[in-house]
Amino acid sequence: VTEPVATTAARSLPWGPADRSNLVPLEGGVTAVDGIRAAGIVAGLKPSGAPDLALVDAGRPVAAAVTTTTNLVKAAPCVVTEEHVADGRARAVVINAGNANACTGSRGLSDARETARLVAESLGCAPDEVVPLSTGIIGVPMPMDRIVTAIPALVDDLDDDEAAAERAARAIITTDTVTKRFAVEVSDDAGRCRIAGFAKGAGMIEPAMATMLAVLVTDAPLSGPVLPKLLGQAVARTFNRISVDGCGSTNDTVVLLATGTAQRPPSLGAMQTGLEAVCADLAHAIVADGEGTSKVCALTVGGAATEADAERLARAVTGSVLFRAAVHGADPNWGRILAAMGGAGVAFDPDRVTVRCGGITVCRFGTATAFDRGQAAAALSGPQVTIEVDLGIGERHATMLCADLTPQYVADNAYYTT
Amino acid sequence: VTEPVATTAARSLPWGPADRSNLVPLEGGVTAVDGIRAAGIVAGLKPSGAPDLALVDAGRPVAAAVTTTTNLVKAAPCVVTEEHVADGRARAVVINAGNANACTGSRGLSDARETARLVAESLGCAPDEVVPLSTGIIGVPMPMDRIVTAIPALVDDLDDDEAAAERAARAIITTDTVTKRFAVEVSDDAGRCRIAGFAKGAGMIEPAMATMLAVLVTDAPLSGPVLPKLLGQAVARTFNRISVDGCGSTNDTVVLLATGTAQRPPSLGAMQTGLEAVCADLAHAIVADGEGTSKVCALTVGGAATEADAERLARAVTGSVLFRAAVHGADPNWGRILAAMGGAGVAFDPDRVTVRCGGITVCRFGTATAFDRGQAAAALSGPQVTIEVDLGIGERHATMLCADLTPQYVADNAYYTT
Repeated sequence: VTEPVATTAARSLPWGPADRSNLVPLEGGVTAVDGIRAAGIVAGLKPSGAPDLALVDAGRPVAAAVTTTTNLVKAAPCVVTEEHVADGRARAVVINAGNANACTGSRGLSDARETARLVAESLGCAPDEVVPLSTGIIGVPMPMDRIVTAIPALVDDLDDDEAAAERAARAIITTDTVTKRFAVEVSDDAGRCRIAGFAKGAGMIEPAMATMLAVLVTDAPLSGPVLPKLLGQAVARTFNRISVDGCGSTNDTVVLLATGTAQRPPSLGAMQTGLEAVCADLAHAIVADGEGTSKVCALTVGGAATEADAERLARAVTGSVLFRAAVHGADPNWGRILAAMGGAGVAFDPDRVTVRCGGITVCRFGTATAFDRGQAAAALSGPQVTIEVDLGIGERHATMLCADLTPQYVADNAYYTT
Repeated sequence: VTEPVATTAARSLPWGPADRSNLVPLEGGVTAVDGIRAAGIVAGLKPSGAPDLALVDAGRPVAAAVTTTTNLVKAAPCVVTEEHVADGRARAVVINAGNANACTGSRGLSDARETARLVAESLGCAPDEVVPLSTGIIGVPMPMDRIVTAIPALVDDLDDDEAAAERAARAIITTDTVTKRFAVEVSDDAGRCRIAGFAKGAGMIEPAMATMLAVLVTDAPLSGPVLPKLLGQAVARTFNRISVDGCGSTNDTVVLLATGTAQRPPSLGAMQTGLEAVCADLAHAIVADGEGTSKVCALTVGGAATEADAERLARAVTGSVLFRAAVHGADPNWGRILAAMGGAGVAFDPDRVTVRCGGITVCRFGTATAFDRGQAAAALSGPQVTIEVDLGIGERHATMLCADLTPQYVADNAYYTT
């Protein structure tokens, strides 16, 4: 059974770059970028027997950047990934699902290093050109015998067509119900390039599976300090502004490889927009496919003095289980929004706040309007809902994307499969 | 129908003062303290027609202290309560349920002041001797006509027996299923005094009902700076260390009246222990009666350098919906505990952390032990569960009390009753 591929429903929300006129969506995944091969096979790490080991190979060392979890409890592969990308270069990314290699002590670190070394040996490159990522259960040592056995077959599986991109995207998912891959061509007067990526989300039927991973590739000639800067900006406004359950992970990682084969690339601004667009689509796909999710909510806090204030307030709202339960119930419950913002540690004047649910103003100057409850509930009833908060102070805004909180989410996460 | 009274199940948990040898539980509620009268009637603020207006009267101005919500969005009665207790004295507390008088602008402030003035007029005292508290729906103006009509009957209802204490405790509850009142006699070689209180919890079937209120009384001769200090200490370790859903409210308030009629009071330390015990019992009762709660978890972080560090880490864990879902499922999921602590912004060494679930060590030095999953699950299966985290750094600890996250909680909070 091939899982369906995530759609681009994100584009009906105020999410990602507003202007996509320089972007053309492409079929395929990472292999849409010239020179990129991908693979995905069964290594036997998932009890289900589903594919669980993926590889992306640029064929030679290229410019690379990475962002990993800010969690103090950082999984071994995150540590090794940071070491291997410290020089701004990498060739390949190996990703396993089924075991997070987190809370595994010094053995975990040597297992992650050994995985990179084994892949490098098969590819014929240096160990620090391979970046290892993991997702899965926390606190269980990696079954290295299965990794050792699988790596030759994994390298054999590398190919440059869409089917290979799909195999890789499929091998990294855990409780995701769809594979998540997007690609765009970016073009303007200066030229063109491609940007592609795939990701897995934060569903967690098995315990402690709480990781989002993404691998991005581009043929844009980006390297040096600009590459981590562009990646950091795109991640800050996309992957770092989604919340399925407000729980940070030990393994979150986004890796970007830039091959530089695009001979006439577009402007830096266009590339930045393209990167943010791919990240936004992947991030949306993660939320939409979150455990128990029945709808996606884009919550924008605007009229703020700074974007940081807007983000902090938006994060406080989307982190509120009461707010997310109200989203599930299509309840225009603006009181919960104000109460959540009031605890965020950001100064604002409640008497200047306006709240709109699906375009309907339910609160103006901090008190209730005479809105039609049925109409407001209807505006919050679709699979994609929009809520806007205007602080009435300044001109900055930030949007967070969150999943609703459903009884199914709780049921799925309550029981350990002993 | 009289709701049952909350029990003292808290005492089976590591919660509240460890040494209760100077304390004797008393029947009754606030009227167990000499000179205190209480009342509770139907004012017509709750659609259900249940009692919704309560009064506690000390008969004359006495020493008073208050702690209110730290939320920036502070309800009008919290503002007026702080004004009226600013001089360290109060005579009476009037509490309504069914309407929070929050997000109601300048009209809300004048409504809260008018409520205090009307009660003062009926009692024959100054308006600033009356403290007004509210809980209920946010953003709806207070129906003052019903308050005006009800106040003479409320004052007529005042009495000094246990039935009156129960009427008051009952009139302030909203979605609580039990009334919450406790009283103790504190005695040592120096003498004796009584401390009593009642509270309402944070259940919320109606939207935006997210308030905890408590009224405490004592005959201890406490006044001046020591009274707010003692109250602050007791609240910091009890009411401020509980979490039903991690959502702060606009109306949270704890008021303490000290009549000073105890002629030979016990030592200050004994009184402090007594006050913390009553607060701990009320706080536990609030969690145990939280919306959808099926069990109460005491999560202790120990081995910390400071109590503030321990509290911050414990709060991060009990604020994690994944952790609270695991508590519901009796899942010894220590990976979620470490992941939650890692995001708390407190320095610790994951490799020194030990986690015990119901006394069973499931993680030692940051990695899994070979524990028996069935045994650990059994230890987490009762209505009162204990989880201990040892950081292995220092000697300080803090305990948070939280409710499990249940599908019922989500269902109860998702739908607006239009």
